[in-house]
Amino acid sequence: MDGAVTDAAVLDALVAAEAALTRAYGTLGAAPRAQVDAVCAALGWVGAGSPAAGHGIAPAEVAAAAVAGGNPVIPLVALLQARVPDDARAWVHRGATSQDILDSALMLVARRAALETAATLRRTGMALAGFAEANRDEVAAARTLTQHAVPTTLGLRAAAWLRGIERAAARVEEAALALPAQLGGAAGTLASFVEILGAEDASRLPVAFADELALSAPPAPWHTTRWPVTELGDALVQALDACGVLAADVATAARTEVGELTEGSRGASSAMPQKSNPTAAVLVRSAALRAPMLGATLHAASASACDERPDGAWHAEWPALRELLRLALGATAHAAALAEGLTVDHAAVARNVEATRGLLVAERLSLVLAPLLGRDAVARIVAAAAAGGDLANLVRDALPPDAGVDADALLDPAAYTGLAARLVDAAVTRSHREGDA
Amino acid sequence: MDGAVTDAAVLDALVAAEAALTRAYGTLGAAPRAQVDAVCAALGWVGAGSPAAGHGIAPAEVAAAAVAGGNPVIPLVALLQARVPDDARAWVHRGATSQDILDSALMLVARRAALETAATLRRTGMALAGFAEANRDEVAAARTLTQHAVPTTLGLRAAAWLRGIERAAARVEEAALALPAQLGGAAGTLASFVEILGAEDASRLPVAFADELALSAPPAPWHTTRWPVTELGDALVQALDACGVLAADVATAARTEVGELTEGSRGASSAMPQKSNPTAAVLVRSAALRAPMLGATLHAASASACDERPDGAWHAEWPALRELLRLALGATAHAAALAEGLTVDHAAVARNVEATRGLLVAERLSLVLAPLLGRDAVARIVAAAAAGGDLANLVRDALPPDAGVDADALLDPAAYTGLAARLVDAAVTRSHREGDA
Amino acid sequence: MDGAVTDAAVLDALVAAEAALTRAYGTLGAAPRAQVDAVCAALGWVGAGSPAAGHGIAPAEVAAAAVAGGNPVIPLVALLQARVPDDARAWVHRGATSQDILDSALMLVARRAALETAATLRRTGMALAGFAEANRDEVAAARTLTQHAVPTTLGLRAAAWLRGIERAAARVEEAALALPAQLGGAAGTLASFVEILGAEDASRLPVAFADELALSAPPAPWHTTRWPVTELGDALVQALDACGVLAADVATAARTEVGELTEGSRGASSAMPQKSNPTAAVLVRSAALRAPMLGATLHAASASACDERPDGAWHAEWPALRELLRLALGATAHAAALAEGLTVDHAAVARNVEATRGLLVAERLSLVLAPLLGRDAVARIVAAAAAGGDLANLVRDALPPDAGVDADALLDPAAYTGLAARLVDAAVTRSHREGDA
Amino acid sequence: MDGAVTDAAVLDALVAAEAALTRAYGTLGAAPRAQVDAVCAALGWVGAGSPAAGHGIAPAEVAAAAVAGGNPVIPLVALLQARVPDDARAWVHRGATSQDILDSALMLVARRAALETAATLRRTGMALAGFAEANRDEVAAARTLTQHAVPTTLGLRAAAWLRGIERAAARVEEAALALPAQLGGAAGTLASFVEILGAEDASRLPVAFADELALSAPPAPWHTTRWPVTELGDALVQALDACGVLAADVATAARTEVGELTEGSRGASSAMPQKSNPTAAVLVRSAALRAPMLGATLHAASASACDERPDGAWHAEWPALRELLRLALGATAHAAALAEGLTVDHAAVARNVEATRGLLVAERLSLVLAPLLGRDAVARIVAAAAAGGDLANLVRDALPPDAGVDADALLDPAAYTGLAARLVDAAVTRSHREGDA
Repeated sequence: MDGAVTDAAVLDALVAAEAALTRAYGTLGAAPRAQVDAVCAALGWVGAGSPAAGHGIAPAEVAAAAVAGGNPVIPLVALLQARVPDDARAWVHRGATSQDILDSALMLVARRAALETAATLRRTGMALAGFAEANRDEVAAARTLTQHAVPTTLGLRAAAWLRGIERAAARVEEAALALPAQLGGAAGTLASFVEILGAEDASRLPVAFADELALSAPPAPWHTTRWPVTELGDALVQALDACGVLAADVATAARTEVGELTEGSRGASSAMPQKSNPTAAVLVRSAALRAPMLGATLHAASASACDERPDGAWHAEWPALRELLRLALGATAHAAALAEGLTVDHAAVARNVEATRGLLVAERLSLVLAPLLGRDAVARIVAAAAAGGDLANLVRDALPPDAGVDADALLDPAAYTGLAARLVDAAVTRSHREGDA
Repeated sequence: MDGAVTDAAVLDALVAAEAALTRAYGTLGAAPRAQVDAVCAALGWVGAGSPAAGHGIAPAEVAAAAVAGGNPVIPLVALLQARVPDDARAWVHRGATSQDILDSALMLVARRAALETAATLRRTGMALAGFAEANRDEVAAARTLTQHAVPTTLGLRAAAWLRGIERAAARVEEAALALPAQLGGAAGTLASFVEILGAEDASRLPVAFADELALSAPPAPWHTTRWPVTELGDALVQALDACGVLAADVATAARTEVGELTEGSRGASSAMPQKSNPTAAVLVRSAALRAPMLGATLHAASASACDERPDGAWHAEWPALRELLRLALGATAHAAALAEGLTVDHAAVARNVEATRGLLVAERLSLVLAPLLGRDAVARIVAAAAAGGDLANLVRDALPPDAGVDADALLDPAAYTGLAARLVDAAVTRSHREGDA
Repeated sequence: MDGAVTDAAVLDALVAAEAALTRAYGTLGAAPRAQVDAVCAALGWVGAGSPAAGHGIAPAEVAAAAVAGGNPVIPLVALLQARVPDDARAWVHRGATSQDILDSALMLVARRAALETAATLRRTGMALAGFAEANRDEVAAARTLTQHAVPTTLGLRAAAWLRGIERAAARVEEAALALPAQLGGAAGTLASFVEILGAEDASRLPVAFADELALSAPPAPWHTTRWPVTELGDALVQALDACGVLAADVATAARTEVGELTEGSRGASSAMPQKSNPTAAVLVRSAALRAPMLGATLHAASASACDERPDGAWHAEWPALRELLRLALGATAHAAALAEGLTVDHAAVARNVEATRGLLVAERLSLVLAPLLGRDAVARIVAAAAAGGDLANLVRDALPPDAGVDADALLDPAAYTGLAARLVDAAVTRSHREGDA
Repeated sequence: MDGAVTDAAVLDALVAAEAALTRAYGTLGAAPRAQVDAVCAALGWVGAGSPAAGHGIAPAEVAAAAVAGGNPVIPLVALLQARVPDDARAWVHRGATSQDILDSALMLVARRAALETAATLRRTGMALAGFAEANRDEVAAARTLTQHAVPTTLGLRAAAWLRGIERAAARVEEAALALPAQLGGAAGTLASFVEILGAEDASRLPVAFADELALSAPPAPWHTTRWPVTELGDALVQALDACGVLAADVATAARTEVGELTEGSRGASSAMPQKSNPTAAVLVRSAALRAPMLGATLHAASASACDERPDGAWHAEWPALRELLRLALGATAHAAALAEGLTVDHAAVARNVEATRGLLVAERLSLVLAPLLGRDAVARIVAAAAAGGDLANLVRDALPPDAGVDADALLDPAAYTGLAARLVDAAVTRSHREGDA
């Protein structure tokens, strides 16, 4: 699932960023067309927004040299220049600093991985909307602080998952589309580019460069203003939060004693065939547990981005972002599979509704009967039922003949689900509307 | 600075939330005007969006009882009901669950503290814009990985601070204005409100309730979908990141050996009068170091918000959010004071530009002279200068008489600041435009 | 619960640290006895290892002044000196730096709070040992990945809680007892003390000072080597982890559908009397969720402790440590109450053992029957049982008459609990042994 | 540097764990010698405490299958059993659960990586001890809150680094040597092993198994009591803290304006030859910034380790521990190189001592002169010097002729370094003693 963020994918993006710079010089008329084409051919340029391909450089070639110098761009540029004809060589990496190339490449990688994450979230949302509609009126026990409280519906529970997932999808999309290219030269002044192109063309170069990478044009170099990274990080963590809530609820519902939900693709165990492990939920929960600390790492790096390039903070950022992207890709894929395969054991749902022998509507009894019977009388009824008495009989016995209250209707959990159906409809409608947009 | 988030402020917000619920019943015509007024009088209702005042309940009265039950609302409701005339008592807390009141109150507190934070960030931005304009062309050494790299300007460095601060201000405002009221009843179905009001009015109640608190109307109960909290948390952490970068740069510039900047209100030490501690920067850095983990705590809580009310996650959220709001209020106040009082030692800035005896423009020499003299010759010049030689003489000696290169201009750091001035102007213009908006 | 870490407690510890320094000068014969006594009287000295009392300074007096200067010691010293007779005044704070006093006071506070935490953990351990013994042979369903797997015993589950709690108690004790006093002067050289006392006596002063505070004597000033703080922090987080596991298991066991355990002091809800909220478990889980990020904050501060006093990291440490101590005091108290009041619903435990209608011993069937019947035959038996068949009949029918296997014994969950009883005995014995030591 | 924690290393450890289990059955006399030997040969057993080698299984073979089931052991066992002769096959993975093998393998990997980390820390400590001795009396400016405060020595600063590094080394060693093997069967009861071996031999099996892996014998299964992992994690984070302090101080000292220290292997930049990037310090700082959140992740997982195997927490642990081991291996290697190559620019150190023109000893003037001249007179002298006056002349002019104070000696920074030399000697002696032990 993590093809988008492998070492090879990062290398391809680095090479694409170098090619994009050369192409940007070409767009501005500074680099001759033939030399631009020669560079593109040597570097395996594929097209705007795509990683390079076919350049023939192996990640391991770059990795070893990268550790010594603290970044992979310096050895990579040497390898690339060696592949380019002499007369075009000067246009490779011209005027750029390592951070320009690394940040731009990483944004290219991040944009693709984040958009894939968002798409998978949308797919998850569609499945959840379907589940919510299908189970719109399935009465279930609502649980607060682990205890059955009042009735709800499976549909409403799914609608809550759905809102979380869709909000996260929108945030991830927004952050991904805002990711800017980076081009500032050694210290963010673009002085080298002004030297090469003059001020007017230098001020156009970042836009042209960003276009070649299908990234946003940066209003200014952001070597030390890292909010594009933290905003994406926050959105990804939010996505994992939303998947985590879904997974936590599914894991609970899958418990042997609860048994309301099972994942479609339950892993069979030959030794313990009674088990139906909620494997996808487990993997999602694992990712959701880790994500907040990765987001925090991005913020800690951002807050330390001092000088014109910091002495450690920038280097801490990428491993954390990459791991977060990897988690997001994996967890959203598991969440989508989970949502698409979710199966309801209706009998278990109904059995659980009855587990407290009618007391799931105790709150309603207080509201309806207290004005008729007094609070003390209601408390006595409920206590008797909690001690094993038959709640329906207790209620019927207590009601005055002329009360005009239908005890059966009063005790029906399905009649005490409030606005659940409306809330499901609103969430599903909103989801469909966003899906169309 | 943290008046907005004290125990007393939270209590006043809780009481306001209870009053707002009664008022919302009044707005829908369910609660009689006189009873609503009686409740408002007893609870010290002040007005939409304001904490209550004058209710006469002390935080300590509520706190002790709160620990036993796990939340302060249950004992508070008892105290409030005792202050309300008998005939109005039923309209206090009617149909609500503790989380409805707590979440709404905390959003009221959070909204006010966050908007104050944003306003202070805007004030900081104004000061930084002024600083950037005033020092637009002040040439300074840019530092990467702790080393002097190329020239920049103090104005450009301040423009970077400015962009970070203003972006954060916008995010905090956006998140604060989106904070919703909470109203869902025991498990988010609003069943109790439907029982009391019928479905139509029950569906209008959350909107009326939100209006009384000047909070956003929630599209649905969000007992377990906590993104309003994490989105605010992320924005606050982003604000502290931005302040942290400013503070880190000021702390570096205040170092005895660097000496470029001092805080206006330098603390005098009688025993060590040579010290000029950058106290505000130190306090901001301290806050910026802590903030990411508080943001992560909010996400960890959000990702665990299972069932219809979770068994611990919700309780973990508020202490973390409150501490984060407190940090944000404090750190932005310090940052504003710092920005408003920032003083430049121009002699120190100039001295540091010369610290590498002309080599701050070594990159430019490579760009300009290599085509004329060859890379090896340039390398020899630069190496000779690094070893102690006079760079200007070395360059003049190496240039052919007809090169048409003005060595003095070439070596002038002020002539190698690229687009710094343009970038300052753009940032300042944008800042003024946002300030007007 | 958090009396040990309130603002007032910290102030009392700061005053005690100042008095301890004067007393240490007295011990070395430098300060005259009468002047030492005058200082002790004015400052409310109580005794070695105790906070001061009766000095009459209010926390609010110090707090306001503290923010401006970045620490509370400078204003505090002025207040203290004003309370001391003229001739003794010079011995107050003599030669010390603010960090000496603050670190020492905080270690005094931390030591007391941590030892109280450890004692509460030991009390929790005693209760758990009793619970483990009492339920040593109570067969229960073991759950892995939410699913019933094989039999275990309640006693073994409690033994695991016990081991975690006792390990944490030992770690907290060890870290608390190692907490050192701090005494280094302005930059950790003790130069001021050498100036006052000469080198020999100056080298004895930190030991004398530590004795007065009942803290460890520091081998050297540790202004920027903060492992005493992080090691305590790590131990406290470990304590909260151990309490968290207990609480998570109790919360699960308290679920309406599981129903195996209830907290002794179940909160009654008038509106929803069927609920028995595991309130202590919820509060412990909340604390356990937050603790890791507080521990991480201490490490982040420690890793940034540069120069001879850092520009922010030190200031970030204390709020995090104090919150962690507060969490530990609260959560261990809740955990102790939980452990002491834990009640078993034996019928529910037995019902859950039977929930998979005998298949809880499926693993055993594979081990015992596969050699007799072949793996495929066993798989068929188990599958038939999983589909609703009677497992005992299926096994009996499949066994050859001469197999010598007692089907009832084979299927008895109590006969497949392995070393559970031995492991319980070992844990309980070890616990008693540690309790005696 | 991270060979010890690669995918291949983990696979080799998993295979070793499987072989160790078979060997443990052999040790107890249960598995025939020939079958044990056949398994060892097929699995590439190398020896106690060593990963397996030569088994011929590729990580990618296992990885793909692992995702589906949530752990790699199930597919691995199938691959291994296929390589073993029919009659020995039953002894592979017999009675074990996946977590037994995974935990044991990971402890094997962690132990080796942690011991390598500790050894590198010891090497770093030796270099720092040498540096401290060599620069024992090199007077330097001590800096607090970024400002020159009083004199210290380079030796004392290095002694602080040394104490931090050696304490961390001891903690890492202690935690590594305590890492236990895991053997509990499906739910930690060892029921399967009792079935196979009887209770007596089953209780000996974990010890025999641990011996084969050169791990500690576990007192009980620790499937859900994860302190061995968090204690190692805490020690590793502590190691990165200690390296981080060293790196932060070196990075500051390497600043162009400070210039006191350079790394031995300074990266040359052709374009900006004036730069001497402290690359090792930058990489160490980057690792130190990330480590606390990885430690926090381990704690968050530990605190959630519910049931007999949790639904996500355990899966979150290993990626975090592995990344933390990788960081520790890398950062300690960089720290060792840094410590071994650290070069002092003595002229810069001396220049910085003089940067405040004598006021570095202002604290001493207060101590010595105030009794002679009064506090006000001293304050006037110091203020005049701070304003540009010659401090020596000011002091000489103020001293009465008969004061008996040698102004030159009084103002000599080398005469105001307190116990610095003693503290260096103590730290170095202690270091050598530990090195011998």
